[in-house]
This record gives sequence, structure tokens and C-alpha cells, in this order.
Amino acid sequence: MSVDLPERTATISRLRVPGLEELPPKLQHQIESITQQLGYTPNWIRAIALGGAHTARFNEYLLPLLDPNQGLLPYADREILATVTSAENGCSYCRLNHAGSLGEALGDSKLGTRVAIDFKEVRELSPRHRTLAEFAAKLTNHPGEVSDADIETLRELGLDDEQIFEAVHVISVFAAANRFTIFLQVTPDDAFFG
Amino acid sequence: MSVDLPERTATISRLRVPGLEELPPKLQHQIESITQQLGYTPNWIRAIALGGAHTARFNEYLLPLLDPNQGLLPYADREILATVTSAENGCSYCRLNHAGSLGEALGDSKLGTRVAIDFKEVRELSPRHRTLAEFAAKLTNHPGEVSDADIETLRELGLDDEQIFEAVHVISVFAAANRFTIFLQVTPDDAFFG
Amino acid sequence: MSVDLPERTATISRLRVPGLEELPPKLQHQIESITQQLGYTPNWIRAIALGGAHTARFNEYLLPLLDPNQGLLPYADREILATVTSAENGCSYCRLNHAGSLGEALGDSKLGTRVAIDFKEVRELSPRHRTLAEFAAKLTNHPGEVSDADIETLRELGLDDEQIFEAVHVISVFAAANRFTIFLQVTPDDAFFG
Amino acid sequence: MSVDLPERTATISRLRVPGLEELPPKLQHQIESITQQLGYTPNWIRAIALGGAHTARFNEYLLPLLDPNQGLLPYADREILATVTSAENGCSYCRLNHAGSLGEALGDSKLGTRVAIDFKEVRELSPRHRTLAEFAAKLTNHPGEVSDADIETLRELGLDDEQIFEAVHVISVFAAANRFTIFLQVTPDDAFFG
Amino acid sequence: MSVDLPERTATISRLRVPGLEELPPKLQHQIESITQQLGYTPNWIRAIALGGAHTARFNEYLLPLLDPNQGLLPYADREILATVTSAENGCSYCRLNHAGSLGEALGDSKLGTRVAIDFKEVRELSPRHRTLAEFAAKLTNHPGEVSDADIETLRELGLDDEQIFEAVHVISVFAAANRFTIFLQVTPDDAFFG
Amino acid sequence: MSVDLPERTATISRLRVPGLEELPPKLQHQIESITQQLGYTPNWIRAIALGGAHTARFNEYLLPLLDPNQGLLPYADREILATVTSAENGCSYCRLNHAGSLGEALGDSKLGTRVAIDFKEVRELSPRHRTLAEFAAKLTNHPGEVSDADIETLRELGLDDEQIFEAVHVISVFAAANRFTIFLQVTPDDAFFG
Repeated sequence: MSVDLPERTATISRLRVPGLEELPPKLQHQIESITQQLGYTPNWIRAIALGGAHTARFNEYLLPLLDPNQGLLPYADREILATVTSAENGCSYCRLNHAGSLGEALGDSKLGTRVAIDFKEVRELSPRHRTLAEFAAKLTNHPGEVSDADIETLRELGLDDEQIFEAVHVISVFAAANRFTIFLQVTPDDAFFG
Repeated sequence: MSVDLPERTATISRLRVPGLEELPPKLQHQIESITQQLGYTPNWIRAIALGGAHTARFNEYLLPLLDPNQGLLPYADREILATVTSAENGCSYCRLNHAGSLGEALGDSKLGTRVAIDFKEVRELSPRHRTLAEFAAKLTNHPGEVSDADIETLRELGLDDEQIFEAVHVISVFAAANRFTIFLQVTPDDAFFG
Repeated sequence: MSVDLPERTATISRLRVPGLEELPPKLQHQIESITQQLGYTPNWIRAIALGGAHTARFNEYLLPLLDPNQGLLPYADREILATVTSAENGCSYCRLNHAGSLGEALGDSKLGTRVAIDFKEVRELSPRHRTLAEFAAKLTNHPGEVSDADIETLRELGLDDEQIFEAVHVISVFAAANRFTIFLQVTPDDAFFG
Repeated sequence: MSVDLPERTATISRLRVPGLEELPPKLQHQIESITQQLGYTPNWIRAIALGGAHTARFNEYLLPLLDPNQGLLPYADREILATVTSAENGCSYCRLNHAGSLGEALGDSKLGTRVAIDFKEVRELSPRHRTLAEFAAKLTNHPGEVSDADIETLRELGLDDEQIFEAVHVISVFAAANRFTIFLQVTPDDAFFG
Repeated sequence: MSVDLPERTATISRLRVPGLEELPPKLQHQIESITQQLGYTPNWIRAIALGGAHTARFNEYLLPLLDPNQGLLPYADREILATVTSAENGCSYCRLNHAGSLGEALGDSKLGTRVAIDFKEVRELSPRHRTLAEFAAKLTNHPGEVSDADIETLRELGLDDEQIFEAVHVISVFAAANRFTIFLQVTPDDAFFG
Repeated sequence: MSVDLPERTATISRLRVPGLEELPPKLQHQIESITQQLGYTPNWIRAIALGGAHTARFNEYLLPLLDPNQGLLPYADREILATVTSAENGCSYCRLNHAGSLGEALGDSKLGTRVAIDFKEVRELSPRHRTLAEFAAKLTNHPGEVSDADIETLRELGLDDEQIFEAVHVISVFAAANRFTIFLQVTPDDAFFG
């Protein structure tokens, strides 16, 4: 490997954290790539590496949904969805993580933190972001209650069907990601406490 | 395409169902493959095809987890997890679908149907299947409440950490898949009504 | 007795299943009558026969409410109420049972099954049936929240006060019947899986 | 009729209160009987008389379950079950009514009132009454969660299967009765405010 | 002390009930004052006297909020808020206590009792009192859901900002008081059963 | 006034923020005192100043409970109780505030932040702090469910009855304080985002 990666840290997860050498090549590559991007290896990807090939496929699904440089919805929209979903699912690691990335996406670190705690108490949210946040909360907590009127509200924001379903993908991938991180009780990265 | 696929059926979903010709090649291939396997195209994959490349990557993540011929856990275990998760999330389409596949996996179609309605009322479940079902329900409804004792219970069934985390992957991919199908209100396939 | 009745099957209930000869004459007669009607003895009536005279009086209360040939509301209306109530109360036996009778009442067995799983996901329900279903769910789950507006909605369907209260009777008799069957964990009849 | 009955009081119910002359003979007789017993006509039976023959059959089911002079369980046990069920279902009329009858059954009117408000705060309940109260609450709120251990606890109190199922009948008839009275918003009798 | 106070009654609380001589002077004075006012010492103030100086400061906060002779809102409004809050928090002692004081404030003891059981079933509540009751329930159970529209509804009743916030103070002091009394399982006063 | 206080900031609250000159002297003094202590005036005390004399009495009740230099329980214990209660009640302002003060009390700012988000995911909590946190959560969410066994668990930590009831006071004062701040939607202080 070309990047200098940290040694195994078994205490970052409730289950076994495999050594990097045990992992399938695709997963090793994903870890290197993220390490290069952030300057360190985040605990989440080391911890869920236990899932081997399953996790490699999951990361392939997840990462483009959070890429600022691609997607049908603006990056800030997708970070709102990810952050609110993580708060609703009760994932501390993900809330701390996305408090930061949402803050960057919005150019306002306080707002990022406040949304990660509870979007409902943030009066300053734009109508667009409030609508997306409410949709994330509803699809997370009561998926069967998303009504035709709720879909119409998203259309009134200007979203077409593909963009609406991309929002569904973001909320749903975090329904999964949050469960991984909650289950493993992944230790928050030091970097979250900037 | 080598397989004869049905024409667009717009009524199977609450949002737009794209024509097959619009889809990325990988997704077209996935649809052909499933159609060949089942003898017809299930509504779920036509409906979520709206997600284009995101859906293609999602299917790559999902399908090996449900493949009888691979996986760390027995296929029947994985169908128990998928079926119970779908019942807990309230996805009618998925419950009807997995009532059938679970029934086949167990060699008992009545049991498959009964678990899809409510596993808690099925006294005949083996201790192993009951434990897995309870784990699926807990990680679905109250992920933060999965305790060290719950993990120990899975170990007592003989699961190692990799198998435990495969179970987490199955439950989590259905946290996502159920939300797609509930949100789109996908019409159940005629084939579900045996 | 004139009808050939099955022998005691102790495994159909969590408590004791009395022999037919122990039962009060009225209850024996009810069992014979149903056996003649269906061609077999359903497990529910054998299981709740433990209640002796109480159960005989209960059956006298229940059975006319489900009789296609009497009642103030159409039979299909009453089967919608019974099926949705049973789903909301989480009674697997009753859901499987009424999936069938509702399907017959509607002349559509798929619809019967789908309503027994979850009426909220059945877009094809008529406005009348959706309104009755929502009323059944509300009176079952949050009886104190049935508002004057909800009653007005039923009046707009054309129901007079007597018909509205007949609906209340159906929902309420199933609040009781579901509890019997859930409590005893009555084994579903083979006929449900036809 | 031999008993002097009050005139129609339309304000005691949210729906129509029929005149006594409209009612089937059996229901008239039940009303006369109760009026003789109490010295006045309680609002509940006038209000649910709207249900005509259905209500007459319901009363036939209900009344022996609350008769101090019959039943398999002691009368005080059955009043505990009725009162706690009514509190759990949130029926004010029934709570006020049974606060009185439970108080008489126990020979302690304060205890009757306190159980009608919330049995969980009444430290003075006997172990037997506390167990029955907890059973009523569980079968009312989470019927699917009544476990084999819960049934064993009732057996340890000395209840056989017939007595256990009589308890189930009492709790279940109030699942119905409470819904009638909540739905109709029956005005509490003046006599409740002793 | 100038007033004849009862001896220590250890059974009125789940924790220790201190002797009057142990208490700080301010708290002794509060107890004397209430005893003079009521003609007996209510159990609540003897039981929470365990909190010494903390309790003395709490009583200083609480008592003016319930004083008929002061306050920005009419006394009956404040008793409605206190009674409904106590019912929502499930405090039997407080419900019995305020059933009486609310009845006096309204000049209708039956109404006081009925509101203490469940305000939602009391059709006779004035629009003003119903609005205040609903506000108490919402701020108690789902404080984060009190909307700008809810505040506007209070303004339409004629409340200015100071009066609205006084209502918040009453509901909130009972969020605290109810927890004391529930936690200590304070025995209801004989006087409540008038 | 001897301290230089900021001008009125109406945007920090959903209701009116009174000018300092309108406030009763005791409340002015409390504001000055806190401003001197912190170096700025926190938004919470400016916002709840709307309550005039009620708020002044409330602050007298609250502030000693949070004073590091007094109290029966260690200051860190009381900050754990305050922080967890604020998280359970869903008060963003209080969570952000106490993330900081808890971090100082523990000498670990990361731990303070993590507990403010969700204590259940913090494996590093000491057994003492975990027990206190669980008690705060239970008394906040389900006060009626605090059992004799729960009280015994607190005694096993070494708490006597006075210390247990001081814990109840802290949790309860925050049941009130959280409602003030949630209701007014008080804007978090810039200082929280350190």
C-alpha cells in the first residue's frame, strides 16, 4: 500500500477489527482512498471492514451518494438528509461526523452542529432544507406514512422523480450505515472534536 | 437483450417507472438475470430502476446477501432475517415476497407465511431461528438497545464475529430495501398469491 | 351429535382444550353448526371452548355480526372492519382467517390478503372501504381520539347512527376475539393456506 | 313495564339515544333489571341501547362476568380486572363506575378510587391483585407479549386454566365495553360522584 | 411552632420522612402555613421535606403560581393547567389533590374530578379551558412540538406573552412536582376522598 | 448596575425579550451575577426573564443545584444528571450548554459532548455515572416505572436518601428548565461552539 495506515485498533468497535492484510483488495483500496482524502483513517471504515466483501459492496453503494462532485441533488441537500437521518436513528458517531461535513457543505459549522443535534429546533433552516429534513425524519421513523401530499411538497421544491428517489437512496443507505455504527458502537474520531 | 422482458408498467409504482432502454447497462443486466431466474420480472426491480446507477450499485450490494449459494450464514437464516425485518418495517410487498422464499428455504410454505405475518406468534420456530428473528426485530426497531448480552446469545448459537456482522448486513440492507418499496408503494406480484 | 367432529387436538392452544363432551350444549351446538358450514372444525372455536358458558354467550354475540345474511352494514364492510382490526391488534390467526373471508366478500382474494397484511399499503381500496378501515384502526389503537369529524366522515358515506354503532360493535367484538386467539396462540387452520 | 324509567336523555351520548319503546324486548328487560338493582338507570346502558339486538346480545355476554353471585374467580378479582382494563383503555365513565364497584368489592372505597386512577401507584395492593392488574394491563396494551411465564405466574396464584380464561374474558369484554363508552362519550352518572 | 402538627408518618413516602425538627426554618414555616390553611398537613409537603433547603426553595417557586390571590392568569386557568399536567404525567396524588382544588376553582366538583381523570373526554369544557388543557398536554408530552400556531391560538384567547409564559411556568413546575410525588409514591391524603 | 450588560436581543426567543430595566431587582441581580461569572450574558437567562418574578424564584431554586461549591452530590454527578435529562427532553440549547460544563466537570470535553448527544452509546462511562444517567432517563421518560430495585441500585452506589432526593431535584428542575428553553426556542450561545 502506498499510504501509511494506522495499526489495528481493536478498541474502536464492539466486535473484532480485522487487520488490513486480511481484507479483500477492493476494501483495502477504499480505506487507502479515504485515508488519503482525510489525512487519517476514520474509525467507521476500519470497524465495518469486518464485513469483508459485503462491506466493500456497501461502500461502493454509499460513497457516490455523498460525493460533492456527483449526484442529482446539491451536496448540501444530501448532507442534510444524511445528518437528520443519523439523528433520528440515534447514531452518535454519524451525528458527530456529519455535524462537520454538513457544516462545511453549508459554510456554517454552527448550523451543522445544531442540525446534528435536532433539526426541529433550528429556526434558521431554509424552507427547502426544512422540507428535506422532515422527509428524512418521516421516511426514517414512519415510512408507511409518507403521503402523496408529501411527494407533492418535494415536487414543489423543484425535485423531479429521479431527484426524489435519490433522496430516498440517501435516507435509506443511512438506515443501513447507522445500524452498522450503532451496533458496533464505533468510537468517535478525535477529529470530530475539532 | 436475450430475454423477453415485459413492457413498461407505470401503475406498479407511485413514481415514474423508466423504460428499460433508459437504464444503465448494469441495471438492464440485473433485470434480465432476475427475469431469467424467476420466469418473469418482479415489480420491485422495475420500480426501483428509477434510481438508475444508484439502484444498480444497491442491487450489487443486496443480491449476494440473498444468494442461496454463497454467504457465511445458512440461506434459511438469511431469509428469516429478511422476512422478519420486512414485517417489522411494515413492507407488504417484501413480506409477501419473502413469505414465499422463506417457505422454500425452510421446506415449509405455511411457516414462511406465518413468519411473514408475525414471527412472535409462531411457537414452532426453532430456538436458533427465534433468536435470529428477535435480533432482526431489535436492530430494526431499537438499534441502540442491542446489548452485549444479545451479542453473546448469537455467539452461543455458534456465530463468529463475521457471521454476526453478515446478519447485521442482511437486516440493514432490508432497512433500505423496505423503504424503497414502501415509499414507491410497489404493487405485489401476481406470483405472490400462489 | 349429527356431525362427525374431529378428536381433541391439544396442540392448537397454549391452554387446555376441553373434550367436546365437557362443553355446555349450546357451545356443542355452535361447534357442530360451524363444522357443518365449513366442512371442518376451525381451531379458534375448539380453543376458546375452554371458556365454557362464557364462550357460548360470546359466540352468540359475535356470529350474527359476521353473518352475510343479516346486519345493517353490507357484509363486505363488516369483513373490512374485522380484518383491519385483527391486523391492528396483531392477531395472526384472525388475519389469515379473514384474509380468506374478506377475499370472498370482495370477490378478490388478492385484495383480501393484502388488506390482512396492511390496508394502508393498498391503493386500490375504495374510498368507502378506506374510510371504514381507518375508523377500525383508530377505534382500535386510539379510541379516545375518534373525533366528531371522524363521525361526520362516516355519515358522509351514508351511514346512519345505527349503522355507525354496528361498525363499533364489529371492531369491539374483535378487540375481544383477537385477544382470545392471541392469548391462546391458536394454531392457524390448514385451510388458511389453501 | 313495572319499573318507573326515566325519560330519554339525548345529551348523555354523542350519537342518538333511542326511546325505550323502540328497543327489542330483551334489551328493555335488561334496562328494567338494572334500574331495579341500582335505583336508577345508568347512562351507559341507555347510550349503548342504540345497538339494538347487537347490544342485547352483548349485555347477555357481559353481565354474568360481573355478577358477584357467579363466576369462577372471586368477584373482587373480576372487579380488579375490569377497573384496570378501563384505566388502561382510557375510559373515564368506566373508571368512575368501577372505582365504586371495586371499592365495594374490596370493602375499601379509597382503594377502589386509587386503582381506577392508576394501579401502579397503589403500594397496598395484595400480591394477588397486583398480578391480576399487571395481567390486565398487558393483555390490554400488548396482548402479543403475554408470555408462558406470565401464565405460570397466574397458575402460582392458584388459578386453573378455566379461571385464567375467565380472566381473559373479563379483560376482553372490557376491551369492547370501553370502546362503546369512549366512542359515545357517555356522560358519567351523578351517582359516581357520591 | 404555633400550630399543632402531626407526628412523623414514615409510611407516606418511599424514602425517609424527616422529623420536623430537622428541617430548615423556612421549610418548617411553609409546613405550618399550609397546615393552618388546610386544617391538616398534606402528605406531599411532609414527604418532599426530605429535600431540605432544595425543597424550601422549590416551594417558594411553586406556591405563588397556585395562589388564587395573585398571578397573571385567572386561578381557574392555572388549576386547569396543573390538573391536566398531573394527569398527563401520571401522578395519582396530584390528580386527586387537584380534582378537589380545580372543582372549587370552577365551582363544580364533578368537573374537577372528570378533568383529573382525562380532560379529553369532558365535552363540557369551555373553549378557553380546552385550549389551555391541550397546551398543557402538549408541553408535557411533546414539548418540541409546540408550534407557532399553538402560540397564536393562546394569543387568540387574549393571553399576552407574560401570561403565556406564566402558563409555561405552571406546566413546568408540575413537571417537577409530579416527579417528586410519583418517585416517593406519596400516599394520598384522606381528605381527597371527601 | 455595575456590570456592562448587552442590549436587548429580541431574536434569541420565540416570545418577547423584556428590557433589563423592566425586570424585578432580584432578576437583574441574577443576570449580572451570571454575566460576571461567564464573561457574557447567556441567552437562556435573557429569554426566560419574560417570566419576571416567577423566573427570579425559579433561578433561586435552580442555581444552587448546579453550584460546584455546594450540594450533597459531587458536581460531576449533578452535571451528568442535568445533561442526560436535557438530552432525553430534547433541549438542544441545554445539551450544547451542558456538553461544555459536563466536559469541564469531568476534565474531558469529548466525553461531555458525547454524553450530551446520547449517553447510551458511551461505553467509557463509569458504572456510577452510567447508573445516574439511567436514573435520569427513567425519571424523565417513565417516572412511574422507577422501582424499589432502582432505588436500591442508587443506595449501592453509596447514596443516602438525601442524596437520592437531591438527584431527583436536579432531574426535575431540568424537566422545567428544558421546557422553558424548548418552548422559547432559545438561540444557542456562540460560546457553545468553542
